[in-house]
Amino acid sequence: MDYRFAGRVARMKSSAIREILKVAEQPEVISFAGGLPAPELFPLDAVRQALWDVTAADRGTLQYSTTEGYGPLREQISERMRTRGIEASPTEILVTNGSQQALDLVAKLFLDPGDAVVVESPSYLGALQVFDSYEARLVAIPTDDEGIVLDRLEEAIRREAPKLLYLTPTFKNPTGVTIPAARRVRLMEILERHGTMLVEDDPYSDLRYSGTPIDAIKSLDRSGRVLHLGSFSKTVAPGLRLGWITAPPALIAKLVLAKQGTDLHTGTLVQRALSRYLRDNDAAAHVQTIRSAYGSRRDVMLRALEGAFPPGVTWTRPDGGMFLWATLPPIVDTTLLLEEALRRRVAFVPGEPFFPDGDVSNCLRLNFSNSRPEQIETGIARLGALIGCVAVG
Amino acid sequence: MDYRFAGRVARMKSSAIREILKVAEQPEVISFAGGLPAPELFPLDAVRQALWDVTAADRGTLQYSTTEGYGPLREQISERMRTRGIEASPTEILVTNGSQQALDLVAKLFLDPGDAVVVESPSYLGALQVFDSYEARLVAIPTDDEGIVLDRLEEAIRREAPKLLYLTPTFKNPTGVTIPAARRVRLMEILERHGTMLVEDDPYSDLRYSGTPIDAIKSLDRSGRVLHLGSFSKTVAPGLRLGWITAPPALIAKLVLAKQGTDLHTGTLVQRALSRYLRDNDAAAHVQTIRSAYGSRRDVMLRALEGAFPPGVTWTRPDGGMFLWATLPPIVDTTLLLEEALRRRVAFVPGEPFFPDGDVSNCLRLNFSNSRPEQIETGIARLGALIGCVAVG
Repeated sequence: MDYRFAGRVARMKSSAIREILKVAEQPEVISFAGGLPAPELFPLDAVRQALWDVTAADRGTLQYSTTEGYGPLREQISERMRTRGIEASPTEILVTNGSQQALDLVAKLFLDPGDAVVVESPSYLGALQVFDSYEARLVAIPTDDEGIVLDRLEEAIRREAPKLLYLTPTFKNPTGVTIPAARRVRLMEILERHGTMLVEDDPYSDLRYSGTPIDAIKSLDRSGRVLHLGSFSKTVAPGLRLGWITAPPALIAKLVLAKQGTDLHTGTLVQRALSRYLRDNDAAAHVQTIRSAYGSRRDVMLRALEGAFPPGVTWTRPDGGMFLWATLPPIVDTTLLLEEALRRRVAFVPGEPFFPDGDVSNCLRLNFSNSRPEQIETGIARLGALIGCVAVG
Repeated sequence: MDYRFAGRVARMKSSAIREILKVAEQPEVISFAGGLPAPELFPLDAVRQALWDVTAADRGTLQYSTTEGYGPLREQISERMRTRGIEASPTEILVTNGSQQALDLVAKLFLDPGDAVVVESPSYLGALQVFDSYEARLVAIPTDDEGIVLDRLEEAIRREAPKLLYLTPTFKNPTGVTIPAARRVRLMEILERHGTMLVEDDPYSDLRYSGTPIDAIKSLDRSGRVLHLGSFSKTVAPGLRLGWITAPPALIAKLVLAKQGTDLHTGTLVQRALSRYLRDNDAAAHVQTIRSAYGSRRDVMLRALEGAFPPGVTWTRPDGGMFLWATLPPIVDTTLLLEEALRRRVAFVPGEPFFPDGDVSNCLRLNFSNSRPEQIETGIARLGALIGCVAVG
């Protein structure tokens, strides 16, 4: 049967790479492709106990609840935001089904078809998908080793008057790059000058392994033009699907209306269980455990790259997050390389889909959080041998 | 600060009645206003045990998972659909965050601004909100005591060529009315004749207290034009936020893309826990328990109405669901009546917002699932006394 879909459906494409990567799920493949946290570090027993406790007697745990989110959890998030330099009352926080839903709700609030959205090149793929599904016009700005290039950004803002600027300023997916404090200040000045709204996607900032913590860009916001998105997926567990938006009350009120129509509210049970987990455990100590494990994995990967990758290949050295990013000689198409890599039982994500204009094909993203150190060494050796062959010709 | 919102935001309105009804949350008010299941009937211990069991060892329970939904749960839903006369393989099922998200995803898939959507008058408020948020043009069709009036429906389909028809054919929210089998067959013929898609919202069909079960309209669908929405909110618990869509594989594939951008996937933990609950418990027996409790509450309310409501007031006598619907003399505006009712410590929802054209103001919706029998008797007596004063003048 022929269905009469909405116009946006033409822009909701199934990913060819996702199909190829199904091979990477086989146990003999060492995969640096996913964006998964390490399951062996999930606080399973503590979450289990929290679930047990919140289902002891209070039947409200299984009932409908408010769209805004569970009160005590919003208070805990408000506290947590202080560590990012953000002063936000619980009324400035909306709990969402992971930060992906936060992105979708923000797009729903601001974007009409054809509206310009400025993004970094490369950018988080899931954000590009959201903006595509709202039929936005993506304006891609190049990045250097300190993130988005400000001159090019201001030029684009002048020309396009975008509805939104979207950034992952800290340990960005896919490159691991962080915008330093000084550039954040200058960025905020540009936003003020032109009245531009910023969506600051910040799921990785707790995962810092070196360098000095930097406050969120939202901490510089005096006029209510930054929406900050947070997530418990990397610090507790992604299978709960819990994230949040921090924004001025006027925006939260609209986002609540948008969420009400979208799914009424985020699950009562998971919100109460997370709140209990945060109350009854030393969540900061747990994050420290994750940090030290991921930090060593990053170091192992960086050392392995030094040993295994041939000259002419460069890569980022991120201070945190879950990814690093390698740039190969321009003759190498990493989408083609992936098929050969899978035959050699190692997987990565080709860089091309992260570029809004799809114009760069010699990069690849490597995840270091979800493989054990010995797997990292073996996998990078396999990959280095392959790249050696291809790049030398 | 002045924000440049998307056009759709103008149609996402905060409900004035929702504000008034906050008073109804005070314990001294007997509320027939909500749409809540009775929490004392939640299978709390069984859900608690299921949560305990799925968090015993498998860390995948807290990990990211597939957008389609948890495989074993999709199989269980597929089995369950047989009781509605629907043959659907697990690949024809997408798990959602409650059936409200199912509605939102269906709208995302089909609706461009200005597209016509045919709805019943009155209709489920949450559906009207979704269609509004996609800037659809609502075409309201009158209903009689067998649901949507088919001649008027066919006329509207001819005139408007709607993208979707939206119905809650079984124990409809707000009226409790059910479309009988014969009218379902004729309805399906009309849809076939004009190539119209149907969204069949079916959250209440398990809650039947009298009469003979009727298969879902989807059971008559031979050409893949019916999307059937189901929910565990009424038969297990709403705080889990678990529903589903049954649709042809070609539509599921597109809905999966839409959901991926919206929130990646529904929570792994809650899906696995629900699947475990369904496996390890006699879920059908639990539904029977709910049925017998709600059935008596309905009977108590119907008897109380006979005794307390003055002549000139009529009401529906639904065979199931959670609501009945009263029609007062045309001079009574039930939105004004609500304020006086709250002073007398009884609450209901005025009918007006359920009418897409907002043109009927003398109806009200009464929920009977969330009050105990003695509260029902007291509350209806209070309401009857008030209506007696007002209607007589």
